[in-house]
Amino acid sequence: EVKYILDIRDFSNHPDAKLFTKDVNAILDDPEITAVVEAMGGSHPAYDFSLEALKRSKSVITSNKEVVANFGAELLETAKENGVKYLFEASVGGGIPIIRPLLSSLCGNDVISVAGILNGTTNFIINEMQTKNSGFFDALKIAQENGYAERDPSADIDGLDAARKICILSAIVFGQIVSPDKIHVEGIRNVTPRDIQDADRSGYALRLLGVAERAVDGAYIFVCPFFVKKDCLLAGVKGVTNGIRVVGNAVGELHFTGAGAGKLPTASALVCDVMDAVGGDPSDNKNRAEWKKDVSEDFLKDFSERRGRTYLRFASVSESAAALLGAEIITPDALITSEFSESELDAILEKNSLKPISRIRVF
Amino acid sequence: EVKYILDIRDFSNHPDAKLFTKDVNAILDDPEITAVVEAMGGSHPAYDFSLEALKRSKSVITSNKEVVANFGAELLETAKENGVKYLFEASVGGGIPIIRPLLSSLCGNDVISVAGILNGTTNFIINEMQTKNSGFFDALKIAQENGYAERDPSADIDGLDAARKICILSAIVFGQIVSPDKIHVEGIRNVTPRDIQDADRSGYALRLLGVAERAVDGAYIFVCPFFVKKDCLLAGVKGVTNGIRVVGNAVGELHFTGAGAGKLPTASALVCDVMDAVGGDPSDNKNRAEWKKDVSEDFLKDFSERRGRTYLRFASVSESAAALLGAEIITPDALITSEFSESELDAILEKNSLKPISRIRVF
Repeated sequence: EVKYILDIRDFSNHPDAKLFTKDVNAILDDPEITAVVEAMGGSHPAYDFSLEALKRSKSVITSNKEVVANFGAELLETAKENGVKYLFEASVGGGIPIIRPLLSSLCGNDVISVAGILNGTTNFIINEMQTKNSGFFDALKIAQENGYAERDPSADIDGLDAARKICILSAIVFGQIVSPDKIHVEGIRNVTPRDIQDADRSGYALRLLGVAERAVDGAYIFVCPFFVKKDCLLAGVKGVTNGIRVVGNAVGELHFTGAGAGKLPTASALVCDVMDAVGGDPSDNKNRAEWKKDVSEDFLKDFSERRGRTYLRFASVSESAAALLGAEIITPDALITSEFSESELDAILEKNSLKPISRIRVF
Repeated sequence: EVKYILDIRDFSNHPDAKLFTKDVNAILDDPEITAVVEAMGGSHPAYDFSLEALKRSKSVITSNKEVVANFGAELLETAKENGVKYLFEASVGGGIPIIRPLLSSLCGNDVISVAGILNGTTNFIINEMQTKNSGFFDALKIAQENGYAERDPSADIDGLDAARKICILSAIVFGQIVSPDKIHVEGIRNVTPRDIQDADRSGYALRLLGVAERAVDGAYIFVCPFFVKKDCLLAGVKGVTNGIRVVGNAVGELHFTGAGAGKLPTASALVCDVMDAVGGDPSDNKNRAEWKKDVSEDFLKDFSERRGRTYLRFASVSESAAALLGAEIITPDALITSEFSESELDAILEKNSLKPISRIRVF
């Protein structure tokens, strides 16, 4: 149950107008409040409000990487002292589950390194430069026009946003928080189309990575552009998507990718943290605890009704057969149909005495 | 603390010989045992032992997809009735964290679909067919020689292994378990090199996918080969690696990839489940609860000491400069150095008055 929404702007015409307050103390003083979601951005007053909420034994859930990277150690300690939680899955990688898997699914590993495309804006710019062979400032302008970059884009393009995120990931895997202002950070302002072409020509893709690598008695933690081999999955992460590669001594190499920003992906991460904070272990939910057996025939849908496009190869393909299938001919004897259900396709093939040698669905 | 290891073979010369027992009742009857790891494979007696352990209030952790897919509903119910856990992260995707993220990190989503490369053997065979243009049986033989395929490979190549795994994932996201023997399953026995080439030529990669898609009042659940667009990350999953794509209504598209089998990745997943079973919420571990602040200068290593290869571009490159840098020349004015620390590279560049226009590290 959401009891308050704190915002200094006027929402008197909002359907939930009665929930809005401009006074943080209304929330902090209310003993019914067990958890607070902080999605304000910036260090102050977000940090101050979070600290106060934790001191009053309210869990705090945040998407604010600036606060987590700079004040996380203190806020975690305060949470622990007060028997509540400080949770921040949404602060790195948007909706990608990364904080929780690092904590709960890799606990049997020593993590050797974490490296990731942690900033969607710069990844969009790099891809724009690559596909359109445009310069950095032209690509930045397109990112701004598409709402992927702020009017003042420096936190993104100069690497500070990625620096905050790699410091958070590093703290998760190494148990030590390093301030983003202490690490080596290079952004993409000086990357040229030529660099990107050279990468491409020699089997690499240029990517801005935040990296935390275990070293003897410590770690290298830094942000800079990299040439990434094309067979590494990070090279396949395009546009505003984020991707994170984790290497564990037992599990080997893992990759996690998904939307790194956006209101719904961020909300997805925040909501799970809220459920964790207020409802106990979210993995103990109904799905794990109870699986209905398929007593009903209804649940599993008949595969013959599934619709999709299909690759078909014949001894030879006639124009008329291709037309019947609404198909794109891809070689003299193979085509990809337009969308049919399995049974519709069966019927067309049978009616026209078409006998494919191969039939493979298109994903 | 590991108290027993159940195995019918002789381990009298093993360093842990005293832990071995051939009698399951030694374990079941011992009230000190709180959790049992079942990694036997096969339905029986693995299911029977698991059921009995749960009935005696011992949590069971398993990598056995056959048992989970066929008896998971009953075992979960028994676990719940007895106040213990039945955990099976290792049963799908080897060491890839997938079960736990689906349960605990996507709890604010309706999952729309799950699709994955769930069997490493078949993915290896497909890649072998693609890169060497070899036929199915030749590729299978190489998989067997490399230990990636069993002597009787039918559970892999005919899709049953993938079917069990997609039924487990489907149960996790839809809350209903469907028997693997009820779903549509096609393996890769009939896939030809020509199909793989046609995929490649038309912008796809051929992959064997297990798929669970939400439909009105139910779901399509099936296994078959697919043409997957090359810009989908599943197309980039090579060799014995597994990859899983999850689409949620809030989070959008996520990908998880990693080693789908192997003793250490499987152990990684089992160990975390054990920690969950015996030690409470594994996400409440030391790393989350406490971050040391970087009071010591030692932890963050000096970036200038980090070693790696570097792309350098100059106004022009001389053969002698390239030789100094142990470099591979990639264009008339650009090269990739051999491995140096940052400071070693700085020193060579300065000593020889080499002033790069671009300097980008190789990942």
